[in-house]
Amino acid sequence: MDLPQTQTLQLSLERGVLTVTLNRPEAKNALSPTMIAELTGVFDAVRASADVRAVILRGAGGHFCAGGDLKEMMAGGLKPPGAGEADPIVEYSRRFGRMLHKASTLPAVVIAICEGAVLGGGFGLACVSDIAFAHAEAKFGLPETTRGLPPAQIAPFVVERIGLTQARRLCLTGAQFRGTRALELGLVHEVFTAEDELQVKLADTLKQVLECAPHANAVTKEIILGVAQRDMDVLLDQAAHKFAACVRGTEAPEGILAFMQKRKPKWANA
Amino acid sequence: MDLPQTQTLQLSLERGVLTVTLNRPEAKNALSPTMIAELTGVFDAVRASADVRAVILRGAGGHFCAGGDLKEMMAGGLKPPGAGEADPIVEYSRRFGRMLHKASTLPAVVIAICEGAVLGGGFGLACVSDIAFAHAEAKFGLPETTRGLPPAQIAPFVVERIGLTQARRLCLTGAQFRGTRALELGLVHEVFTAEDELQVKLADTLKQVLECAPHANAVTKEIILGVAQRDMDVLLDQAAHKFAACVRGTEAPEGILAFMQKRKPKWANA
Amino acid sequence: MDLPQTQTLQLSLERGVLTVTLNRPEAKNALSPTMIAELTGVFDAVRASADVRAVILRGAGGHFCAGGDLKEMMAGGLKPPGAGEADPIVEYSRRFGRMLHKASTLPAVVIAICEGAVLGGGFGLACVSDIAFAHAEAKFGLPETTRGLPPAQIAPFVVERIGLTQARRLCLTGAQFRGTRALELGLVHEVFTAEDELQVKLADTLKQVLECAPHANAVTKEIILGVAQRDMDVLLDQAAHKFAACVRGTEAPEGILAFMQKRKPKWANA
Repeated sequence: MDLPQTQTLQLSLERGVLTVTLNRPEAKNALSPTMIAELTGVFDAVRASADVRAVILRGAGGHFCAGGDLKEMMAGGLKPPGAGEADPIVEYSRRFGRMLHKASTLPAVVIAICEGAVLGGGFGLACVSDIAFAHAEAKFGLPETTRGLPPAQIAPFVVERIGLTQARRLCLTGAQFRGTRALELGLVHEVFTAEDELQVKLADTLKQVLECAPHANAVTKEIILGVAQRDMDVLLDQAAHKFAACVRGTEAPEGILAFMQKRKPKWANA
Repeated sequence: MDLPQTQTLQLSLERGVLTVTLNRPEAKNALSPTMIAELTGVFDAVRASADVRAVILRGAGGHFCAGGDLKEMMAGGLKPPGAGEADPIVEYSRRFGRMLHKASTLPAVVIAICEGAVLGGGFGLACVSDIAFAHAEAKFGLPETTRGLPPAQIAPFVVERIGLTQARRLCLTGAQFRGTRALELGLVHEVFTAEDELQVKLADTLKQVLECAPHANAVTKEIILGVAQRDMDVLLDQAAHKFAACVRGTEAPEGILAFMQKRKPKWANA
Repeated sequence: MDLPQTQTLQLSLERGVLTVTLNRPEAKNALSPTMIAELTGVFDAVRASADVRAVILRGAGGHFCAGGDLKEMMAGGLKPPGAGEADPIVEYSRRFGRMLHKASTLPAVVIAICEGAVLGGGFGLACVSDIAFAHAEAKFGLPETTRGLPPAQIAPFVVERIGLTQARRLCLTGAQFRGTRALELGLVHEVFTAEDELQVKLADTLKQVLECAPHANAVTKEIILGVAQRDMDVLLDQAAHKFAACVRGTEAPEGILAFMQKRKPKWANA
């Protein structure tokens, strides 16, 4: 496999295990459009290759991923599309969901190492892994609606991951919680408190994965994901339109501005 | 928002939070046809209004809700409908499920306070909340089949709430359990043991909810509920017909009679 | 009810409770084609009868069931079917899933007693019960992909039982775990450590089941299973074809041979 050239990701392939490090530590690895495009490219390359048995997703600098990069979205402007033009905000939203869906359906086994911030889009990335490890003190949450936005491309994967009952509470309160609670919610499979403990657990898991036949594992993943019978494309398309309507409405511009100005948005003073 | 006039409910709206108190304490707030109609009316009014950000559901007198009011159903008589007439028992069943479905899909955040009896229909009402608090000693259960009836309009929401594996056991055994177990089953989100503890937790939750943008929360709830892609109307219609067939069969009349006579039904002596 | 004649099962019917004992202890009750056919026949007979209120599934000799009997499948040969012939491996796979589906949808309440080995197909059988008891030390796992095979007819029931998040990890790692962990995963409902403790818990559960009306319970199970709205026939048909393709590929012959020769398959040396 030829590893793609990437600016925002560090890639390293060793004995069938591809480690993908989100590498924008100065932004807690927030998902910029470039990073989303590069992750998409990596997942496409892994799918096309027979060399990769497992993919490890991790963030540089002690954080997994702090979410989407709203500044870049807003920089694209809120001008409504002209007649017959596609809405660029729908496309912005959809590109993220498409990347998550590619990660979820990858034939290789995807392992997420959740540390520090696991927020918004980073939370979504954790939800599409086959196996997730969390640091006991990692900080999970879905703060989108506190900024006037729905977690549009993320919520379907959250429901799939932890069920309707926990998903509705988390999405509608913006509640944050630690890795130990993520284990109780069934969001992650194991908790660690130190790097050497993680390395032992990760080595055990990789050993197990490598003892499974690669094609049989890929076929099994297809069967498992087929049970839900959800048409994720339809769901995510609809959600992207809901996202764009929020961005073009009154709440999101106020919420994002308030977030940048480090003040509470108007509705929170109710 | 103009609060509807109600006989069986107490309503109070303060700063975007509507408290709905089921108020038939002499019957442990059993769901009479009037109460079901009034709840339906309240949910319609909340949906039509932009003023309500959260709805708190609670029972008067230390009980949440002891279930449906079978006496009123039986009072309607078991005479089969004439040719071309709709079956009133199907309608009786369906009206209850319609109310639950309206509660589940309300754009506002629904919070249930589960204390004392949380049985049958009351269990169903707990299942459609976004956030549920339970007293550690609250008594949960689905006793319907011990009376010869299926929990027809309730079971779909129970499966959605706690999954097939727990739902099938609870529905097929009539097992009762406490609030602490409800937390373990993922039926509720938090447990309390005293009123002041509840008030602190409730205030925290309301603060979180009010910091989320109202329209973004409503849109998010739409996306989340869309993931299941269940046609609840079809499911509940079918279930209502199964319910009516039980009522018109041999088990339910015996089961309800035995319940009223405080004796065991015939099948339990097997 | 006339109990069918069986070679691999012991049957005993007492007061509406049919105990089915998988009785090939020399093979840890591995599911031979004969046993699968006999289980299918028993489930058909139970469905046709009004006498059986509950079915207890248990294994003889301290093990529940160690899975499918690969030797018998391989003995059938890997010769591809002639033009226009159905693939016997698809049929082999499908017969197993058909039996599981019949167990899952039985109108009677199905209770599984999980002890010793609960592996592969035995794991699947545990997943279709309404109520499962596990010995704290029982050994659960899905080792299929370590032998180059997908758990094709089993995985859909595993997802239905414990959700996507745990199912994907278990199926893709072949991880084994104990009864205490099965309880935490929601795979079983109760754990026991001694036979007399099991008998007390089982008697309590049967008492509860027998106090529920038989037809109301059957109708309730129909409603509950209808919520998933999964077309299990379609899912299992597709999975059977994936299974056969694996058997006719390169991994499964190597994996099964390595298993029989008690060596690691080639891919595990990667």
